[in-house]
Amino acid sequence: MNILEIIEKKRDKKELTKEEITYFVEGYTSDKIADYQAAALIMAIYLNGMTKQETTDLTIAMANSGEKLDLSTLNEIIVDKHSTGGVGDKVSLILLPLVASLDIPVAKMSGRGLGFTGGTVDKLESIPGYVTGIDMHNFIKNVEKIGISMISQTLNLAPADKKIYSLRDSISCVESIPLIASSIMSKKIASGAEKIVLDVTCGAGAFMHSKEQAEALAKEMIEIGKLANKETICVLTNMDEPLGYAVGNSLEVIEAVNFLKGDMPEDLKEVVLALGAYMIKLAGKGDNIEENKEKMLENIENGKGYEKFLQLVENQGGDISYIKNTSQFPKASYIEDVYSDTAGYIKNMNAKEVGKIVCNLGAGRIRKEDSIDNSVGIILNKKVSEKVEKNEVLATIYANSQETLNEAKEKIKEIIEIQKEAVPKPKMILEVMD
Amino acid sequence: MNILEIIEKKRDKKELTKEEITYFVEGYTSDKIADYQAAALIMAIYLNGMTKQETTDLTIAMANSGEKLDLSTLNEIIVDKHSTGGVGDKVSLILLPLVASLDIPVAKMSGRGLGFTGGTVDKLESIPGYVTGIDMHNFIKNVEKIGISMISQTLNLAPADKKIYSLRDSISCVESIPLIASSIMSKKIASGAEKIVLDVTCGAGAFMHSKEQAEALAKEMIEIGKLANKETICVLTNMDEPLGYAVGNSLEVIEAVNFLKGDMPEDLKEVVLALGAYMIKLAGKGDNIEENKEKMLENIENGKGYEKFLQLVENQGGDISYIKNTSQFPKASYIEDVYSDTAGYIKNMNAKEVGKIVCNLGAGRIRKEDSIDNSVGIILNKKVSEKVEKNEVLATIYANSQETLNEAKEKIKEIIEIQKEAVPKPKMILEVMD
Repeated sequence: MNILEIIEKKRDKKELTKEEITYFVEGYTSDKIADYQAAALIMAIYLNGMTKQETTDLTIAMANSGEKLDLSTLNEIIVDKHSTGGVGDKVSLILLPLVASLDIPVAKMSGRGLGFTGGTVDKLESIPGYVTGIDMHNFIKNVEKIGISMISQTLNLAPADKKIYSLRDSISCVESIPLIASSIMSKKIASGAEKIVLDVTCGAGAFMHSKEQAEALAKEMIEIGKLANKETICVLTNMDEPLGYAVGNSLEVIEAVNFLKGDMPEDLKEVVLALGAYMIKLAGKGDNIEENKEKMLENIENGKGYEKFLQLVENQGGDISYIKNTSQFPKASYIEDVYSDTAGYIKNMNAKEVGKIVCNLGAGRIRKEDSIDNSVGIILNKKVSEKVEKNEVLATIYANSQETLNEAKEKIKEIIEIQKEAVPKPKMILEVMD
Repeated sequence: MNILEIIEKKRDKKELTKEEITYFVEGYTSDKIADYQAAALIMAIYLNGMTKQETTDLTIAMANSGEKLDLSTLNEIIVDKHSTGGVGDKVSLILLPLVASLDIPVAKMSGRGLGFTGGTVDKLESIPGYVTGIDMHNFIKNVEKIGISMISQTLNLAPADKKIYSLRDSISCVESIPLIASSIMSKKIASGAEKIVLDVTCGAGAFMHSKEQAEALAKEMIEIGKLANKETICVLTNMDEPLGYAVGNSLEVIEAVNFLKGDMPEDLKEVVLALGAYMIKLAGKGDNIEENKEKMLENIENGKGYEKFLQLVENQGGDISYIKNTSQFPKASYIEDVYSDTAGYIKNMNAKEVGKIVCNLGAGRIRKEDSIDNSVGIILNKKVSEKVEKNEVLATIYANSQETLNEAKEKIKEIIEIQKEAVPKPKMILEVMD
């Protein structure tokens, strides 16, 4: 076997064997295969595609390329949850404590944000004292102790994926369904999940812009899950406008806390309940989706979800006084409202563009090594389809400099499109696939 | 403009502009564009193709990437001749002195052999004293003085092509018509040719195995020639079996000398006359192809072609006593005949396989830096379609070790296929395209 033959086969649209795919992944991870050879193969894959079996073999080879987390000592079915990314996405902060409060163990490793999308780890770290970088022993111990731990990715999971992803980025080969699907699934498999609920976001603020693309990606990931023996359910959710009202690290934590205390924005509620209901189902704790949603709502009302969140924060070293009294979170220096010039209905509010504004305010990273500002962001006052009067508040900007404040104020007004005619309320759950 | 956008465009089957192609060629030659980015683009070109205009723009950008030879001081139309490679191909050694003997100037830079194909420079260097590495000033002076000079490529011609070719070789992207065509034509344009006769070889010992492939390549090169204002004629020739009887450096020189003295193997004669007739036509010295062939045959008979060859060798520092008495050439230590086990007709004699045997005898290079043995090779005694008796000589092996001799004897018998039924004589000139 050699890499030239493998490239030639894929170039000629032939199916690669598991051995050939593994040979490539291992060879590339260990620098035995050159970047330019990998680049040629990746472009051939991009253009000629991969069969389900090839995509699965690629996924598993990448999952096996580094450390893997073994969660079997927990002796319970561990259901992982993953989102393909969005803006204002604080779902994990709410959903996972809520699920844990129903005695379903949660062992979640999350990522940091890059570009216009936020990351759960950044949001958690905006809680003073919260430690996300703990070792695997303590991670599992935490889950055993209180039923939940949420940390950053401290293991060297799927290094082949990391290397291939970075190469794809520098050769214009990012947007490929089999490559995206195998990238996501390889990390999930390496992180020890037995069953997986995927929030496949779709729309202006998501990687997949159309429902068709999102469906194709979901189908591919479900297929990989089947072949890799990891039951996978995909919930396709709307990411045209930001999720909820808050965008920015501590602002989102506060919105999550308020949610758990019963103040639930409608769109966020729909997404949290749908994803949670399928997590409960996969955990074997209830097949009836509507009943599962009721169980979660019950734990909002009786405060068990909120209690679990407090417990989680405390257990990870966080200062729960901030959660109990969210007004303690450090405030941005400039907090200003943006007013509407016209009356009408919110037609559109491009999530990606909102994400970019918040990133420019300092909440996100342009490069991996950038530090971030937890206090800045935007609180929207209106959602798509809502009515707005002239001079009514559209959004509030949280900035730490006059310059970024002014920029954000100007840009958010361009982004929030208003029309005279009524606008239907967007559907949040587009489809559930398994 | 950036390389990511250029890769993306070709990935999406869009036509690249001249500026984009030039940006890539210049950036890659100067190491500003990484190998892996070039690899991704080359694979996208391989799979999605290039338009005639793109191929021409690539050709010209590569031709402009290094030094270029200016032959305009010669004040005559310089017609270049190039072969896409073969086995036993000593055409240049015969054809070019013959054309020069008709007062048509010849300024020819040739290559060395690699793998199973021989190179004209290696053959010339088997003549003791012959210097192929001279500078451009003396090259042009030689042409002015005696009407011909044949040397090796001493200029840094089309370095972009060199770099891209070597990359293609290591990413399984060699067999692409636009890439092969632009590679050949870029070197021809950089070497100062105004008009070009291309011997597009076709068959088992050629790069193009089928007539369809050879036609496609020829069409592409003629098109580039048109767009680049370099009139180009392609002669498609048969390269199923070796050309002539001799394969090996000094053995081929001897065959060429004998040819010029009037001993002309039929297949070699057909190819030499066809290519020469079109060179004469392009040089503006005669439109009638049959008459042009007659002129060449005349200069064989009256010895003018042979005299020109002697003059060429002498002028390049070669010892003409070897040409006058070819038995002086150093002889291989082991010279042995191979006999036929059966009677019948020669059905097939795979040129590539014969080339490999000769290469293994030491006449060729596996790697660029290998040295070569000028005395070894094979003299065939039969050509395809000829009748052979049992125990008649099939070929004579010239080797410098017992081991390589035995290997060659064994292999040549496997390669020469004999059948009871008569075999038609192969057609040598398959097509002429302009």
